[in-house]
Amino acid sequence: MEVLAALNLNDYAQAFSKMGMFPVFDLAYYIVSILYLKYEPGSVEVSRRSPVASWLCAMLYCFGSYILADIMLGSSPIDYFQYNSHILLASAVWYLLFYCPLNLFYKCVAFLPVKLVLVALKEVVRTRKIAAGVHHAHHAYHHGYFVMVIVGYVKGSGVALISNFEQLVRGVWRPETNEILNMSFPTKASLYGAILFTMQEAHWLPVSKSTLILVFTLFMATSKVAMTARHSHGSPFALIESWVCHLLFGSPLGGSEEDHHHPPAAAASSPLKTKEELSEGARKRKAKKAE
Amino acid sequence: MEVLAALNLNDYAQAFSKMGMFPVFDLAYYIVSILYLKYEPGSVEVSRRSPVASWLCAMLYCFGSYILADIMLGSSPIDYFQYNSHILLASAVWYLLFYCPLNLFYKCVAFLPVKLVLVALKEVVRTRKIAAGVHHAHHAYHHGYFVMVIVGYVKGSGVALISNFEQLVRGVWRPETNEILNMSFPTKASLYGAILFTMQEAHWLPVSKSTLILVFTLFMATSKVAMTARHSHGSPFALIESWVCHLLFGSPLGGSEEDHHHPPAAAASSPLKTKEELSEGARKRKAKKAE
Amino acid sequence: MEVLAALNLNDYAQAFSKMGMFPVFDLAYYIVSILYLKYEPGSVEVSRRSPVASWLCAMLYCFGSYILADIMLGSSPIDYFQYNSHILLASAVWYLLFYCPLNLFYKCVAFLPVKLVLVALKEVVRTRKIAAGVHHAHHAYHHGYFVMVIVGYVKGSGVALISNFEQLVRGVWRPETNEILNMSFPTKASLYGAILFTMQEAHWLPVSKSTLILVFTLFMATSKVAMTARHSHGSPFALIESWVCHLLFGSPLGGSEEDHHHPPAAAASSPLKTKEELSEGARKRKAKKAE
Repeated sequence: MEVLAALNLNDYAQAFSKMGMFPVFDLAYYIVSILYLKYEPGSVEVSRRSPVASWLCAMLYCFGSYILADIMLGSSPIDYFQYNSHILLASAVWYLLFYCPLNLFYKCVAFLPVKLVLVALKEVVRTRKIAAGVHHAHHAYHHGYFVMVIVGYVKGSGVALISNFEQLVRGVWRPETNEILNMSFPTKASLYGAILFTMQEAHWLPVSKSTLILVFTLFMATSKVAMTARHSHGSPFALIESWVCHLLFGSPLGGSEEDHHHPPAAAASSPLKTKEELSEGARKRKAKKAE
Repeated sequence: MEVLAALNLNDYAQAFSKMGMFPVFDLAYYIVSILYLKYEPGSVEVSRRSPVASWLCAMLYCFGSYILADIMLGSSPIDYFQYNSHILLASAVWYLLFYCPLNLFYKCVAFLPVKLVLVALKEVVRTRKIAAGVHHAHHAYHHGYFVMVIVGYVKGSGVALISNFEQLVRGVWRPETNEILNMSFPTKASLYGAILFTMQEAHWLPVSKSTLILVFTLFMATSKVAMTARHSHGSPFALIESWVCHLLFGSPLGGSEEDHHHPPAAAASSPLKTKEELSEGARKRKAKKAE
Repeated sequence: MEVLAALNLNDYAQAFSKMGMFPVFDLAYYIVSILYLKYEPGSVEVSRRSPVASWLCAMLYCFGSYILADIMLGSSPIDYFQYNSHILLASAVWYLLFYCPLNLFYKCVAFLPVKLVLVALKEVVRTRKIAAGVHHAHHAYHHGYFVMVIVGYVKGSGVALISNFEQLVRGVWRPETNEILNMSFPTKASLYGAILFTMQEAHWLPVSKSTLILVFTLFMATSKVAMTARHSHGSPFALIESWVCHLLFGSPLGGSEEDHHHPPAAAASSPLKTKEELSEGARKRKAKKAE
């Protein structure tokens, strides 16, 4: 009975890990990514003033993970731009989100139930990217565990890690913070995911890769959907992290949470770290104002 | 008669597209490029304080297009520095422009009639670079039309696209603007040129490459010479762009022009976009003051 | 007699240039590098708030030269991260320096006699890196003398050349200065060293490479030890440089020294250039305050 269950789960995981991402999942990824770009203050104005800059930012949001991973592995950073259909699909999403008459497309995809589905689909793509990144790096550096973690990490985090430079394209410069100093939940989860997939690739973890993909996808999708639904930006890792950081690095207990709350002035002046975490209400208000 | 004319034009275009650029045309390119560097406020002072930083900026001005294109295609960014004669020639121009006794060399090449010839020669090199960039990218990515446009674009625009970082070498930081947000005429023309050459390479344009090179060179040289002679910074694309942007992106009519004129404070504090467009008079006054 | 002496020196130089750097010399390199990171104002606070950012900065300090050289030659910038033992050793040093109870490890290695030995060992590694960088570039570009100098230079200077971006990871941004504008002694010496090793590689210098390594190592170690011991930041090149710059570039006599002293306000607001040059006393006070 137990064996059968395991067999079924394995079969299911296998099928899931072989499922193609293009176009449905990738489309969801592009929509949610460019939606977050539209939430950024000033991005709507940039789309009116300089469509080229706006398009470039949208591409960074959609393909930042490929660009970064290609840079890390010494390939051409625009290697992924050879896939014309992906670029055209992302460009179409960008055009509809920013220039659709009456803002119709935006209103559809930002409608909470629709958005929750899209967010869940996006996390499926993210997990696959982390796994692919680690696998790719493993191919190039058989025992380069640090390389694997780094490539998987940038594959999962994407544009967040270069957000300072993405903002620079839009004429915004916030040097006082960045995604490494103030990691958001998806960035942290990508780091932990990259470590897990590297351990799996090095056979230190007694699970198959397809099972790990399934489990990690479920965890990510559930967490992000719950956070998006509740407009929360707490991290499920907060408690463990706070204790581990206290023990290992002497950080004050309740560390990362406290950090975010203590300096309210800094937080107000640095909307970056709230990029993926900002409550929906505030976001929508900002986006509406910007129209 | 018609056929003969076409034949002759083709022959002429063929011969023109095979003409070597080194050393005459390249020399003109280096002179005009480093002249624009000298026009930048503060650059003369930097050349006194730190010759290495000044030399590095001059190299970025002369070879920025090669550096960027090499980065885009995943090669060594200093690949072009293997051509010792080109580097030495550009270094000699840099030395003469910045340190020649009595500023003689500067006075010669900044003399308007001389400068108009040099500017025209520079545009010949620019067009060839765009064509070579698109061809090079086509070689690496047969159907990567976006890659071709991007590589051709950076080949044509050169240092302008990384001007924020070039300025950083000189200790100047202007994050509020960049060449993507406020495209100057040569940058825009490079983009359109890259699109045209990509269409030619993909056989969507019923002209030979040599004819396209000839026509585009003539257009660029005429435009830039006229703009330099009249100290103007209007763009020949302004009217069409304004209508296209209005239709496609909902920009207010008279878009880009208005953008430049509305915020006079911002324009005054961001001399970047006027780099290649500043009227000669103002430039010379600045350069003389800096001596 | 003369011949014998030369033979012996050559033998000694040969043996010295074949000596392995790992782990003793590399360990000293990591310790001194991360010590300089700890001297940076704000770095201890960052290590409490965001261990990942602190670790990343430490890796940039230890492996910045490899990262930069790999970028310059078009390889993967994290290529060196495949050497797990080096990364683990550097990470251990980082952990001990920042999180050791009672700050014991820091107190040991910052104790002047210990530090002088470590500084001397670090210079051994630096010289070897310059030689290896030039040799590597020579392998890729047989007559690319500029490429050789650039690669040797970045191999010797390491993180200093990207200090603006290293600081950005820690949320600090000082665009008004950089290591090219205000070269510190090690950066200058790396440049001169790279030129010397390139001349040796091109057979323009009638000495063997092992002799050059030995002599340059002795010069660097002596200079840096003397400067560290005397808490000085004068450069042994100052006098020659001042005359050469005066003759070649029209800089005012006493150039670089004057530059540093004239604008006291600028110096106060730009602690960057004092990174490796700051007097020990001030450094220790800062580091202690930050604890």
